[in-house]
Order: sequence, then structure tokens, then C-alpha cells
Amino acid sequence: MATNYVMPVPMHNALVSAAFAKLGYDASECDAAARFCELASWHGIKTHNALKALHLDEHFGSKAGGCAPRATIEKLPSKFKAVQRWNAHRKLGQATAFDAMATCMKLADEFGVGCVAVDNAFHYLWGGGYVIDAAKKGYIAYTCCTAALAEVVPFGGKFPTLGTNPHSWAFPTQDAVGFPICVDWATSTVAMGRVQQFARENKPLPPACAVDKDGKETTDPNKVAALLPFGAHKGYGLSLIDELYAAYIGGSLPTLRNRWDQVKSKPGEKGTCCFFFQCIRADAITADDFAAGRDQSANVKAVIDDIRGHGNEKVMLPGEPEARAATLSERHGGLLFTPAEIDAFADVAKEAGVKFDRAALRSVDV
Amino acid sequence: MATNYVMPVPMHNALVSAAFAKLGYDASECDAAARFCELASWHGIKTHNALKALHLDEHFGSKAGGCAPRATIEKLPSKFKAVQRWNAHRKLGQATAFDAMATCMKLADEFGVGCVAVDNAFHYLWGGGYVIDAAKKGYIAYTCCTAALAEVVPFGGKFPTLGTNPHSWAFPTQDAVGFPICVDWATSTVAMGRVQQFARENKPLPPACAVDKDGKETTDPNKVAALLPFGAHKGYGLSLIDELYAAYIGGSLPTLRNRWDQVKSKPGEKGTCCFFFQCIRADAITADDFAAGRDQSANVKAVIDDIRGHGNEKVMLPGEPEARAATLSERHGGLLFTPAEIDAFADVAKEAGVKFDRAALRSVDV
Repeated sequence: MATNYVMPVPMHNALVSAAFAKLGYDASECDAAARFCELASWHGIKTHNALKALHLDEHFGSKAGGCAPRATIEKLPSKFKAVQRWNAHRKLGQATAFDAMATCMKLADEFGVGCVAVDNAFHYLWGGGYVIDAAKKGYIAYTCCTAALAEVVPFGGKFPTLGTNPHSWAFPTQDAVGFPICVDWATSTVAMGRVQQFARENKPLPPACAVDKDGKETTDPNKVAALLPFGAHKGYGLSLIDELYAAYIGGSLPTLRNRWDQVKSKPGEKGTCCFFFQCIRADAITADDFAAGRDQSANVKAVIDDIRGHGNEKVMLPGEPEARAATLSERHGGLLFTPAEIDAFADVAKEAGVKFDRAALRSVDV
Repeated sequence: MATNYVMPVPMHNALVSAAFAKLGYDASECDAAARFCELASWHGIKTHNALKALHLDEHFGSKAGGCAPRATIEKLPSKFKAVQRWNAHRKLGQATAFDAMATCMKLADEFGVGCVAVDNAFHYLWGGGYVIDAAKKGYIAYTCCTAALAEVVPFGGKFPTLGTNPHSWAFPTQDAVGFPICVDWATSTVAMGRVQQFARENKPLPPACAVDKDGKETTDPNKVAALLPFGAHKGYGLSLIDELYAAYIGGSLPTLRNRWDQVKSKPGEKGTCCFFFQCIRADAITADDFAAGRDQSANVKAVIDDIRGHGNEKVMLPGEPEARAATLSERHGGLLFTPAEIDAFADVAKEAGVKFDRAALRSVDV
């Protein structure tokens, strides 16, 4: 149990919107940024909320050259009707990703499946948010992207040449289990932020998480120079998939990504990220032969109940922690933030010139 | 170095074809079985070759009820043009999977992406074979399926309710690196066959591979009752994806799958597997903005070279061992089998009533 403050959604969104407006983003970008940060905080995502979004903009975004406020996405012509290819021209990630996933859904409505590949993209924060949103609308949704920096060593290697390259899948299981099952993680064993947390707490890392400057595995968080993929060669393969999608789309050398000083010194080079999005309609893949007279949703429920039966009743489903957090947000009528996070929001408000009445916020023990 | 025998492809294919014909399969099924087993052995796949195919048919297939020789695939009508839904009616897996992947390629030629979902399917042996084949023709290909039996415990559980549920991705990187990169593995840490190998060799398993009958982790191969997913919750999520695809397509309870005695005692139930296939045209996802004047293939090569640069020169690419094996097959002009495998083929020939002149086979040291 810890004290949290309840920030009403309109207050949060007005504040986030004002902060992005101050940075030069237009109204629809500010709206997308606010809506997405709301979605993240609503689902209890602490690592990729509004505070992280503003931090990313400062370090890699509008100030650093990775993101261009008011950019227009160029949707390139294609003879292939179910796949679109976009040049985002460094538009804000949340605006690009919302637009891309909406396009995938529209394509899937017509073709059963729809994909959007995006070049020159900027960090979309939390892939899980976009796929959960699409799953709630009835789609089997997927996204992957190249993470900002190459921080991960390929299996058997020494030097970080891969991003933490996440994958996010969600399924429209809300009728079956109450929420979309969402498989969503980075392909490193731990994030660099987690390594820093271990260092602050003076605790050793678990094994197989990281390497030192010589590429040797270490559990000393202070000696960590790069991360290891989860599951040895299997996580390496999953990380490589994001780099390969990006390579086909238009991404350049992983080790140059978001290293703007290095990119600038190499004329013709580029340092942007790539996104890939996909939606499939659940009703497009059924062969209409469910056992025991079940319909599709009842069949999905029966399968999940079987997986969590037989002594497995305590097994969590991926997406369950996010769903629990959403239930808490619903119950308390707003977004839950720790006192430290509220302090940070007060600073954001000051910077954006917005009145921030923290005394008006209710506190709850959650 | 070990002695291997070189079996010419026509000899292998005639033998495999005859063995399947003896079991009641028609000419096109026998052809698909032989062609696929050739593909597996050509790429050095020892675990899923013709001998395994015949073993599977005996234990789960035409004799057990999981596979129906001469079945006709029912291709259901759909309003969604880029996704097909098939009821395979237990047709031989290799014939079904070759047909499905060819259909995905054709759909991708028109729509940029194509998917085929298959219900009432029978084991397709080695997913990597189908995606490598499609990648060689220029597609980014993917397949997943539900494995025959539920042998894997969900993360945090005690009882096996998931299959070893593999995923297979391949990319058309042959121009860039000489072969298609193929990420292809089961979602358990090890296969049950590997556990049996540890038992035979009287060696302990690595940690986090398996549990005993009480659901407790064990490294004693003789006490293994079920397997663990690789990478804890991450591998569990990946295994769950296959079960969910299957649940939407038409697969029933994982714990009933291929347990034909149990299925028969529950009227209206079913015990078949499901497949999912997908192809994307590589030229459908490019935004035509490659750095430094590179084209798509040169960009893919530059990205891979960057990943394997900087001291990572010894890093293997997924699909490289299969490519090396294919080079050996090419060099020796046939499929390479150990003396023990040749013995097994001699038995297959005897059973199928085919003359098998093992003295005519060349031996090589590889």
C-alpha cells in the first residue's frame, strides 16, 4: 500500500498537451501525445508515461533532431492494397502510431489483414498501448520497432549492435477474460533503467542480463556496458527481427541510430527508427468448426480456462497487470501517480506555464 | 568428423514417396511428403526428417486418427480478400503447409500481405522449411502452429497445458548474406527429445528447463514430467500466442490435443492442431529512403554487417547452420545421413517393399 494522487484525465491531458504545445507541436500532435500518455498511465505503465515522453523529446526528440514538430507523414503510393509504406519525416511517435494502427484496422476491415511500415519514425513510447487499443476494437494486433539506441549485444558477441527492440501482440480476449491479452516486452533480459535501479540499491544483477566493457558477462550493475538478449539465441533472433524489418523499410546502421553527432558527420546517413504495425480481423481467421457447439469467443475462453486449469489457477495472463491497473484507474476516477511523479508534473506545469493545483488532487492508498 | 552416407535426392524421394503410398496417401501427398523431407534433410535438420515424419504418422497420424490420407482441404468462402481460412480435414501436414504458403505468396503478390489460417491440421514437421522456401522467393514469411501435445507448463504454473508451440520467421536475405535468415524455434527451453538424450547420457539438465510431477523445477532428466518455457514469462507469452491463434481459428482445449482416447470419450470435442501462415512482399514495405545511396538489398546487408561488426564477427545469424548444411548437401550431391539413419531407411524400404541398395551409397567424412 502506498499513497498515490488521483489526477483527473482532463487535467492530465490539458497539462501534457500544453507541455507539447510549448515544444512546438501542433494541436493534433498535442492531442495524440496527451491521449497516449493517458492510455499508458491508465494501464499503470510507469516507465512510459508523460514524464518519459517529455524526457525522450528532450534527449532524442525535438531538441536533439530525432523528432520534428508539425512534420507531415508522407504516405507513399503502392500497388499493394493491404500494406502501406509511410515516411513519417520524424513526426511525433504517438501521432504516427495512432494513425498507423487506425489505418491497419481500416485495411483489415476490407482485406482481413492490414500492415503499415513506417520509416523515419520517432519513439512511440509503449507498443502495448496501440495493440491493446486495437484489440479492444476486435483485432489481433501486432507492432515492433527499432529502439532508440543499440544497447544489446547479439548472442555470442561482445559489442552492443542491437536495440532493446520490443514486440507487442494483443488479442481481442475482452469477452473471454475481461481484457485483451497483451504480450509486450523488450528483447533484452532487463532494461538499462533497471540496471541503474540495481546500482542505486547496491544489489547484484541476476545472471545473463548484461556485459562489461570487454563483452564479458557481469552481475555488477556498476560495470555494465551493454545488455544481453533474453533467452540466449532465441531473444537475439527476436531482436534481430526488428532490425531486419527496419532494414527492409529504410532504417540504417543500428549503431548510428539516434547518435546524431555521428550521423551528422556522415553525409547521406540517417539515424531514425522504423515501426511496423499489423492488424488481423479475428473473424477473418475462423474455420467455423469449434468444438462442443462453442462460438469463437466461447472457444477462446475455453482454451484459456484449460491453460489456467489443472493446478495452474495462479498463472497470470500477459496483459493482466495492465488490466488490473486500468480497473484501479476506473475505480478512483483518474490516473494514479506517486508523490514523486506529482512533483515532476508540477515542474512540467511550471515549464509549460500552466496552473497546477496539486492541493486539489485527492490521495488514495493503492 | 563422422562418416555419413550420401543419399541421392531421387532415391530418397522415391523411397519416402513409396512409404507414404503404402500408408494410403495419394500421389500428390506422397510428393509433398518426399519434397518436404528432402528440404529438411538438405538443410541438416535431423529431428524432423523422413524418419520423424513416418514416426509421427504412426503415433499421431493415419494410424491414430490425427491424419486422414486423401483428405480434401476445404477452403471456406470469405469476404476478406487477403486472408484465407481453411479446414484441412486432417490432411497430411506437409501437403497442407506447402499449399498454404504458396497461397500466402500469391495473396501477397496482389495485396502486399497474405495469410492462411488452417483448422483441423496435422503436424507439418519443421516450420523453418516453409518460411525458408518462401524467403528464397522474396517474401518475409512467418508461420506458427500448435504442437502435437501439451508438454509445457505456463510461467508460474505446475501442469503442462501448452504445446512447445514453435514460431518460424524467415527474411529474403540471400542476396545480402547468401541465405535467408531464419528465426525458428520451439517456445520451451529444450525439447522432450533432448531431455531423453540427457537421461541416456546420465547428465543433469541445465536449470530452468523442466519440472517434476509436482510442478517443481528439476535438473534430473529422469524426474522430468513437463517442460518450462524459455525466458520465463516471455517464452510463456510466445507459446500462448500459438494457442490463441488456434483458439480463434478453431482449435479446442490444449490438454485434449492429439489425446484421441480422451477426445473420443467427449462427444463434440476435437483434438486437431491449427496452423497460421503469412507472407509479406519485401518490396511492399520499403519507404524508398535508404541511406548513402543504398538499395533495399544493400541496406539489409549494411545493417547485418553493422550488427556483426565492432568485435561481433563470430556472431552467428539464425539460419546459418541450416545454410551450412545445405552447402554440404550441394557439395556432396545428395542428402547426408549417419549409418544409424541409413539403417532406419533400410527398414522403411523393407516395410514399403522398395529395393534399397545401401552398398551403392557413397560415404563421406563430414
